[in-house]
Amino acid sequence: MRDGTPRIEVQLMRMAHQRHQFEIAILSNLYQLSKTTANDEQEAPMCRTIEVAVVDYRDLSPPEVPAPVPGDELSLIPPLNFAMVDNGIFRSGFPDSANFAFLQTLGLRSIICLCPEPYPQANMEFLKAEGIRLFQFGIEGYKEPFVNIPEDTIREALKVVLDVKNHPVLIHCKRGKHRTGCLVGCLRKLQRWCLSSIFDEYQRFAAAKARVSDQRFMELFDIFSLKHLPMSFSCSRR
Amino acid sequence: MRDGTPRIEVQLMRMAHQRHQFEIAILSNLYQLSKTTANDEQEAPMCRTIEVAVVDYRDLSPPEVPAPVPGDELSLIPPLNFAMVDNGIFRSGFPDSANFAFLQTLGLRSIICLCPEPYPQANMEFLKAEGIRLFQFGIEGYKEPFVNIPEDTIREALKVVLDVKNHPVLIHCKRGKHRTGCLVGCLRKLQRWCLSSIFDEYQRFAAAKARVSDQRFMELFDIFSLKHLPMSFSCSRR
Repeated sequence: MRDGTPRIEVQLMRMAHQRHQFEIAILSNLYQLSKTTANDEQEAPMCRTIEVAVVDYRDLSPPEVPAPVPGDELSLIPPLNFAMVDNGIFRSGFPDSANFAFLQTLGLRSIICLCPEPYPQANMEFLKAEGIRLFQFGIEGYKEPFVNIPEDTIREALKVVLDVKNHPVLIHCKRGKHRTGCLVGCLRKLQRWCLSSIFDEYQRFAAAKARVSDQRFMELFDIFSLKHLPMSFSCSRR
Repeated sequence: MRDGTPRIEVQLMRMAHQRHQFEIAILSNLYQLSKTTANDEQEAPMCRTIEVAVVDYRDLSPPEVPAPVPGDELSLIPPLNFAMVDNGIFRSGFPDSANFAFLQTLGLRSIICLCPEPYPQANMEFLKAEGIRLFQFGIEGYKEPFVNIPEDTIREALKVVLDVKNHPVLIHCKRGKHRTGCLVGCLRKLQRWCLSSIFDEYQRFAAAKARVSDQRFMELFDIFSLKHLPMSFSCSRR
């Protein structure tokens, strides 16, 4: 692994094969547990997946936007740089507690975090309460010219994005610009967008912080090994 | 009407009540016809809807992304400033023929054009071939400080956006910044986004061309009269 970050897989509870069975999550000091386990691992996988609750699949009705109360009309706060990428795929900067009410309206099934730092306790509790699975692909937030986006990690994250079983999914890093922008850009390559349109979208979010190195990474990213994956989603359905 | 543009409704063919009946569109010099009719109208409605073909509703399967051919891998060109707004709702600048292959992948049912100019012939033919309905709400593209976004027109356009029978729908103006940005901003108010997030999204597309007057329009836009409309769509579904 290129960035040398220890990663482990703590999959506390696997998705129940009996999809109608309701289970209760037992979560105590989850991240500490994952760190301890990390030291015991020789060959650590690239992604730490933490399932913080098991969803009762009997209730898959769309989430309702809470009814507005007087004086509370414009109260939903999307995370920084939030946007919809495609059906069931969203992107943003790091969500904080101010964004939780908004995130509830998305009915997320999973979150892909591209930062290596421990996931904040408040966010972990939100994921647990909402039955959202966390996939953490730790990519360091370098600054140019020392940018080294690990291609293998992006490739693994892309597989999670492409798997509709994880949808709706929110991809985020810290500011929703560089790491998130690279992952979305690689997805756009799989969707056959021309490079100039991919870069245009990247720059819309990165703005003054756009990096040539990120754009070079997207240009050189080889989608060949992912072509066998079903591209069952497209931008829309009639 | 505030901007004084003559508008008409030329609804050549109504959506067949028998949804399984296939009809053939007869289109000869459609825009000329609409202009002639305009002069005969005393009270012209705000929106010109032109249905350029009738879709065979027997085939509502999702559109397939065309299989890539060698050397044609990154060939899809979204329109300028293209993005997904919500399930079944897209935004962009004015599409031209280079964007048609991409637009095909969206499986659009309708397009909302916010420009008053005659819709280009090539675009009309694309709509006809794809069975896409055009809703044209002519809003002049002013420059500050002479900006006068007509609130009634935005309100009528918003009703079309909110009607899921029109989805997937593409909203566009010329550059996908101001008129489109205002309409999307008003939609966000209905979705209870806080103003700072609405402005942030507006600015992401308008960039250096962001207008305080547009943001004031969105801030003052009264969503009360639209609250009875069903908000059956949200950002996503699990």
